[in-house]
Amino acid sequence: MADQSAPQDGPAKAWSGRFSEPVSDLVKRYTASVFFDNRMAAQDIRGSLAHATMLARQGIIGASDLADIERGMAQIVGEIERGEFNWNLDDEDVHLNIEKRLTALVGDAGKRLHTGRSRNDQVATDIRLWLRDAIDTILGLIREFQLAVLDLAEHHADTPLPGFTHLQVAQPVTFGHHLMAYFEMTRRDAERFADCRKRVNRLPLGSAALAGTTFPIDREYVAELLGFEEVCFNSLDAVSDRDFAIEFCAAVSLLMTHLSRLSEELILWMSPRVGFIDLADRFCTGSSIMPQKKNPDVPELVRGKTGRANGNLVSLLTLMKGQPLAYNKDNQEDKEPLFDSADTAIDTLRIYADMMGSRVEANGEKVFNVRVKKEAMQAALTQGFATATDLADYLVKKGLPFRDAHEAVALAVRVADAKGCDLPQIPLDELKTAMAHVAGAVERLDADVFQVLTVEGSLASRDHIGGTAPKQVRAAIARARSRLA
Amino acid sequence: MADQSAPQDGPAKAWSGRFSEPVSDLVKRYTASVFFDNRMAAQDIRGSLAHATMLARQGIIGASDLADIERGMAQIVGEIERGEFNWNLDDEDVHLNIEKRLTALVGDAGKRLHTGRSRNDQVATDIRLWLRDAIDTILGLIREFQLAVLDLAEHHADTPLPGFTHLQVAQPVTFGHHLMAYFEMTRRDAERFADCRKRVNRLPLGSAALAGTTFPIDREYVAELLGFEEVCFNSLDAVSDRDFAIEFCAAVSLLMTHLSRLSEELILWMSPRVGFIDLADRFCTGSSIMPQKKNPDVPELVRGKTGRANGNLVSLLTLMKGQPLAYNKDNQEDKEPLFDSADTAIDTLRIYADMMGSRVEANGEKVFNVRVKKEAMQAALTQGFATATDLADYLVKKGLPFRDAHEAVALAVRVADAKGCDLPQIPLDELKTAMAHVAGAVERLDADVFQVLTVEGSLASRDHIGGTAPKQVRAAIARARSRLA
Amino acid sequence: MADQSAPQDGPAKAWSGRFSEPVSDLVKRYTASVFFDNRMAAQDIRGSLAHATMLARQGIIGASDLADIERGMAQIVGEIERGEFNWNLDDEDVHLNIEKRLTALVGDAGKRLHTGRSRNDQVATDIRLWLRDAIDTILGLIREFQLAVLDLAEHHADTPLPGFTHLQVAQPVTFGHHLMAYFEMTRRDAERFADCRKRVNRLPLGSAALAGTTFPIDREYVAELLGFEEVCFNSLDAVSDRDFAIEFCAAVSLLMTHLSRLSEELILWMSPRVGFIDLADRFCTGSSIMPQKKNPDVPELVRGKTGRANGNLVSLLTLMKGQPLAYNKDNQEDKEPLFDSADTAIDTLRIYADMMGSRVEANGEKVFNVRVKKEAMQAALTQGFATATDLADYLVKKGLPFRDAHEAVALAVRVADAKGCDLPQIPLDELKTAMAHVAGAVERLDADVFQVLTVEGSLASRDHIGGTAPKQVRAAIARARSRLA
Amino acid sequence: MADQSAPQDGPAKAWSGRFSEPVSDLVKRYTASVFFDNRMAAQDIRGSLAHATMLARQGIIGASDLADIERGMAQIVGEIERGEFNWNLDDEDVHLNIEKRLTALVGDAGKRLHTGRSRNDQVATDIRLWLRDAIDTILGLIREFQLAVLDLAEHHADTPLPGFTHLQVAQPVTFGHHLMAYFEMTRRDAERFADCRKRVNRLPLGSAALAGTTFPIDREYVAELLGFEEVCFNSLDAVSDRDFAIEFCAAVSLLMTHLSRLSEELILWMSPRVGFIDLADRFCTGSSIMPQKKNPDVPELVRGKTGRANGNLVSLLTLMKGQPLAYNKDNQEDKEPLFDSADTAIDTLRIYADMMGSRVEANGEKVFNVRVKKEAMQAALTQGFATATDLADYLVKKGLPFRDAHEAVALAVRVADAKGCDLPQIPLDELKTAMAHVAGAVERLDADVFQVLTVEGSLASRDHIGGTAPKQVRAAIARARSRLA
Repeated sequence: MADQSAPQDGPAKAWSGRFSEPVSDLVKRYTASVFFDNRMAAQDIRGSLAHATMLARQGIIGASDLADIERGMAQIVGEIERGEFNWNLDDEDVHLNIEKRLTALVGDAGKRLHTGRSRNDQVATDIRLWLRDAIDTILGLIREFQLAVLDLAEHHADTPLPGFTHLQVAQPVTFGHHLMAYFEMTRRDAERFADCRKRVNRLPLGSAALAGTTFPIDREYVAELLGFEEVCFNSLDAVSDRDFAIEFCAAVSLLMTHLSRLSEELILWMSPRVGFIDLADRFCTGSSIMPQKKNPDVPELVRGKTGRANGNLVSLLTLMKGQPLAYNKDNQEDKEPLFDSADTAIDTLRIYADMMGSRVEANGEKVFNVRVKKEAMQAALTQGFATATDLADYLVKKGLPFRDAHEAVALAVRVADAKGCDLPQIPLDELKTAMAHVAGAVERLDADVFQVLTVEGSLASRDHIGGTAPKQVRAAIARARSRLA
Repeated sequence: MADQSAPQDGPAKAWSGRFSEPVSDLVKRYTASVFFDNRMAAQDIRGSLAHATMLARQGIIGASDLADIERGMAQIVGEIERGEFNWNLDDEDVHLNIEKRLTALVGDAGKRLHTGRSRNDQVATDIRLWLRDAIDTILGLIREFQLAVLDLAEHHADTPLPGFTHLQVAQPVTFGHHLMAYFEMTRRDAERFADCRKRVNRLPLGSAALAGTTFPIDREYVAELLGFEEVCFNSLDAVSDRDFAIEFCAAVSLLMTHLSRLSEELILWMSPRVGFIDLADRFCTGSSIMPQKKNPDVPELVRGKTGRANGNLVSLLTLMKGQPLAYNKDNQEDKEPLFDSADTAIDTLRIYADMMGSRVEANGEKVFNVRVKKEAMQAALTQGFATATDLADYLVKKGLPFRDAHEAVALAVRVADAKGCDLPQIPLDELKTAMAHVAGAVERLDADVFQVLTVEGSLASRDHIGGTAPKQVRAAIARARSRLA
Repeated sequence: MADQSAPQDGPAKAWSGRFSEPVSDLVKRYTASVFFDNRMAAQDIRGSLAHATMLARQGIIGASDLADIERGMAQIVGEIERGEFNWNLDDEDVHLNIEKRLTALVGDAGKRLHTGRSRNDQVATDIRLWLRDAIDTILGLIREFQLAVLDLAEHHADTPLPGFTHLQVAQPVTFGHHLMAYFEMTRRDAERFADCRKRVNRLPLGSAALAGTTFPIDREYVAELLGFEEVCFNSLDAVSDRDFAIEFCAAVSLLMTHLSRLSEELILWMSPRVGFIDLADRFCTGSSIMPQKKNPDVPELVRGKTGRANGNLVSLLTLMKGQPLAYNKDNQEDKEPLFDSADTAIDTLRIYADMMGSRVEANGEKVFNVRVKKEAMQAALTQGFATATDLADYLVKKGLPFRDAHEAVALAVRVADAKGCDLPQIPLDELKTAMAHVAGAVERLDADVFQVLTVEGSLASRDHIGGTAPKQVRAAIARARSRLA
Repeated sequence: MADQSAPQDGPAKAWSGRFSEPVSDLVKRYTASVFFDNRMAAQDIRGSLAHATMLARQGIIGASDLADIERGMAQIVGEIERGEFNWNLDDEDVHLNIEKRLTALVGDAGKRLHTGRSRNDQVATDIRLWLRDAIDTILGLIREFQLAVLDLAEHHADTPLPGFTHLQVAQPVTFGHHLMAYFEMTRRDAERFADCRKRVNRLPLGSAALAGTTFPIDREYVAELLGFEEVCFNSLDAVSDRDFAIEFCAAVSLLMTHLSRLSEELILWMSPRVGFIDLADRFCTGSSIMPQKKNPDVPELVRGKTGRANGNLVSLLTLMKGQPLAYNKDNQEDKEPLFDSADTAIDTLRIYADMMGSRVEANGEKVFNVRVKKEAMQAALTQGFATATDLADYLVKKGLPFRDAHEAVALAVRVADAKGCDLPQIPLDELKTAMAHVAGAVERLDADVFQVLTVEGSLASRDHIGGTAPKQVRAAIARARSRLA
């Protein structure tokens, strides 16, 4: 800053002869992105090679320029892979770092690479390539998670569990049926990521700074080379658009919300008073002070990381609100939340697919990482009058209107509660006494009522698509498997 | 609360004989939803009629029950439409209010309606029916907005405007090209709403409380009656799932983000120093103190309402985080944010379609509500060296590598800035002097350079898909019209 | 819109002769605020009366003008209280509605009221007056909630409960100690609301539109009349500032977060497998299908309403991001989130103070709405090796380094787990065998170890400020009571 | 995982003999925090030394243990400072890494350090110490920013600028007055950080895992050693509370919101059509394609980083929602958002204090980094009838009711608009004609009216606390300086 008369020297050169003063170190650090955007180096190079190929084909650069660029880029790829590439804060971002190195390696061809493009369309292209890869990884991991869930659900297609609403015992379901709810949630997640991918997979390159370029470029050819399904049809929109990042982060928030719910359940189920399951030790950690502790750390962290996903989404929505067109520097802030949401989704799915999974022992036995304690589930089924609805349905089938049956059973439950027993333990005559206030109830009660009050009877009778009857659960699993095939 | 020994009396009856104490007035008000969920009355009745039709067809209720229910519901529809229906806080929500009135009108058939369902699957069905309608309205309004934008863009397909990046003059674009960016944004919005609609349009009914029902219901038939494309395949998921609401609110947030950007631009453009446009008076308001004011209130409010949309999204994501299955009362909080986001989207699109629109005067002239001040746009094009990139491209086409051309032009800009003139006003010899530091630049400069420095030349030369050349803008408009046809 | 040549007629008049076209009905509805800001009518009138009093004192209006205004306002207050006031959409907001009615009642004096002020500073004053009242209500309700918590905590100062971390049994605490955590949380909430109140309680009036006024006003006098502690020192800031709303909403989000945690615990504790408590019936509701259900609806709704509070905060932060000074119409969107957060806080505290409270029966017995099931808490204390840390501490006190003691006890826990018993049930020699791997452990084990493994011993020994020893819990309650006195 | 029979070997040891299976590498990476929480190493060591000092003073460890610990910690501090410390993923977090190294260095004394504490209270103490430092840094930087603003405001205490509302010209203000709005905003920010600091500065240590400890600790002594103002009064609350992080992040969001507004204004003002200011080159960057560009990158990034701050706040609120007491692993997710918000605030304030600042040239001249273009501000004052309110006030002072004066001036503005001139350019007789519709206006108009229509007259007449009169602006600056002294 001392001598500003020499614009051709020092870091000020980054911005051309237009500037009379270089940026300060603090500004440099504040505005630079190279230390987080160099994750996209491979995508940046792929994009540059496709651009150069097109430039050469259109005669905008020479064939030897292309050859030089390809040679230089091959070397740079190697340097990056070997950890030898020197990322430099002075060159601000991944794009300028690579271009500068290329020019150092191959001279004028390197200076020609940027013909007909701008960093505005270049970075938009890089992110989309990067995100497309991330989505494909996520789609694969959702499938792995689902396969693990299907196995576990199949193993427990008949295992009775109290179904809860309001965390109060509602009706019997099977553990397999319960797990299949998470198959359905993640099926929607996969649909959403696939829908998002369509909108990610459009080519902004060729929009240059904001208006397109005066060179006779061929955007469809670049799109084809890079596997994009469509070109972005408006140059101003193409460099300003961050919808894909927001839509992706919203999809991650929903995925994490689903996994936060499963996590909450695993944590509850593993709490000693509930005691429905145990998680394999390797997903748990202990305490620095309490020697007895085995804590379900992984589900707890997943639940916590939902916050991170929601925060990233809010960051991006706040970022884009009220921005005038076209590119503004604000947009540089898009990357960290996007990367973080992608990392969170990928790591969480990978670990969850393992945690819900199984291994085959030497003796051929399949051991699940979620160990189910059937006796605790069974015991819980006796604690909340789980078959009260079945009793009401029994009366309805004998002709009592549903609202009257509902009231009659409520009175029976009150008696059972006072006696401290479950419904099947009330003798028939006491049941009748309890229901006497409701006209039409008593005469419809018969000894056969006790058959519908069993858990097995209750389960088997919910026998329609989406119901918890073990037969239906198995059908749902089969349907799910065929979807994933 | 005075006498709790008489459970059969008073409001406590709402919850059946199980309860020994009625809810307090404060609790009643806190937990009731009827004053906001009665918006779904029409959907609730449609759902009930389809349910009853299926129950009768399956022999679960009698044909005369169905007839009674249909008759009662027809009367209730009339009462609601005429504003005569008495919504009652004691009956908590839209569902119980209607069922109770039905029973008052038709007796036992009313008490039979709830056979084989629960409020958990009933409310999920109602919301989906309501939201499906809202999405269809939004899709229609997006189309109206787009048609208005296309008309205005076509009218200004050639009108030069400085394209901005960083709110600094970047390159010339046409106003029509700029507007088409908003066509593209809303095209993605429409895609997203359509994708969301697929996931909304699945039938939860038949899931009952959480586990399905013991009655021999036919869910596909109900789906068919109500126009759902699929049934929800897992009963626990069906009553717990609020994905559709979150996905919808995320889509609204993106739509509003786009409109916040257009609003920001309209506000800027109408600010007197910029002066690019004027909005029709009826979208503006004045000041209680400053008599001269004409304020662009509508775009300002739209920009502000983006906050509302983002807030609704965060409400719902927070709501669902970490909830165990299946239904919990928390979920009742889903409706207000959802309704508010839908209302915001619908009102905003309606008003925006009008504001971007036009009317035909008696003399056949089309008058646009956005009045463009071409001379201000033109004047702005002389203020930021808008054709500097064209000058660099000129040198590149003569063989100078792009990076060198970029530096040479930067030096020329510095000279122009010091002289207080635009690039075309620098004489050729001064241009050469300015660029002398860059090897290879001077010998490539010729008198023909001044042709590329005109705005018209700059515009016309960006002649590829997505570029701002008027020819391309017209092609984009034609392509857009054919999409909307 | 038919005839725009007559600006002096119709609703266009609202904006003065400057406008040639009235706003459309849709625009009117979209931009009007009267149907939500009329909540501030009392504050608006208070502010106007103070303003008029000052204007008269400064000789800006006459004494008879003031008398007219006071008379007119008295009548308007009556009309509003009696529900006779006719709120009119055409007059846009609470301010213009009242001013117009005033002018109708008292003529020219009404037209003079707006001298030296603008709606920009008027609305800012109204909201601050309104919010100051809301904060005072909240502070009173927090105190009520705390008093209820203190009573319940005192009643259970000795009641043992397993303290959980990670929802795994950690160490014994008392239920009173656990409850006192919520006293501490809400103590911080009260501090935050009080801190926020300081910044709310500053007078914007006198800033006029944005620059102050040419009339010789006396702002300190108005501040004194209205009970403001300070005047806002910069007119541009005063009309642009919505910090107070955001800070308030952030404080509500934290309050609701705390209550969401208590709600989660109440729900868990009331789940039958846990069974630690029962809530009074009147805070619960039932099921439309399951006759046995008693659901903790109130805590569930509170947990859900946390989403609403967070959403409101995000709405306001999004709203204000990047707004240029001074007032913009966006700011009108500040009210609904603010009102909603205040309502949510007030209703929730009121209901929670009741739910945690008690009543005195005819026989003088105090009955708490939270019924504690001590036996279930006691039973839970035997399920997770709650005194393992006490065993480690025992060894440390005999000289073993803590890390070695931790490892020794972990081995003991493993043995107890395998045997299916709690630590006190392992005979001394088996304990020694279990710990044999850890050098120095065995020789420090003695029969007196079993004294530290009792729950009572464990509780009593945590005897320092903040610890769970019943003595300390009682001291904490006494300290708390003296704070609230 | 191959051999799980040897719990004493391998990484499984981290969790004690209770575990039969070590965590997998993926789980280890997912659950470890050492690579972000090692930022708190200095605080962790400070806290440990205070804890050990107290333990020794209470006779819980020996004097030689303390000496060993102090010696070991001194060495560790050196290793960290020299970058020689080997952070190890297997030891999960900063606490275990340091403790393990300490034990390696000093043996049994290291194993004794953890006596009477847990990582739960340890980490809570570390974060509070870290955050207290961060708040103090922020408070210092706010002051630096304010001093820079005061200097610039003083320099421009008389410089006329159009005050905008709705981005339309409203009334004249001075640039100094406008800047002082930002002084007021950041004054509130400083108050909020100071209020937050009170609640940060309370000691959780001594709460141990959740219930306190059986050792005779002295918490007040530790508080004194570490400079805490109070101890946390409830152990369960102390380890569960993350209020301080949320409150801090909310304060950062408000600070960033303020700076986003200033950024928006700087960007607008530097846009060529507005042209009010120029920023020093070193806060701007250029374009990779457009050689003429000088973009206000720093304010744009600041505006964008507001999103990051809001996202962090939402992350933390989501994180804590519905968590049961006491510590859960979710809480580990508190650190990254907290660190990021602190970093964002610190970097942004530092760069903003510089950007708004000045330097003294060799010739003694003070050169501001914000270069003001007075002529553009002046020109803008003629474009929006900035003195219309003054004209209305003129009429009011002559006795016309304000509402009538407002209407009369609106008609005058309409005439000026049609003529394309400003108000002072309308001859008196035309003014009278324009106002003829308003009874009482014409006879009050006199030639002296043109005196109130000058910018200087308008400015000088807003002469009360908070008004824009240069005299008042200077008084405000003086008042501000005395606050900061």
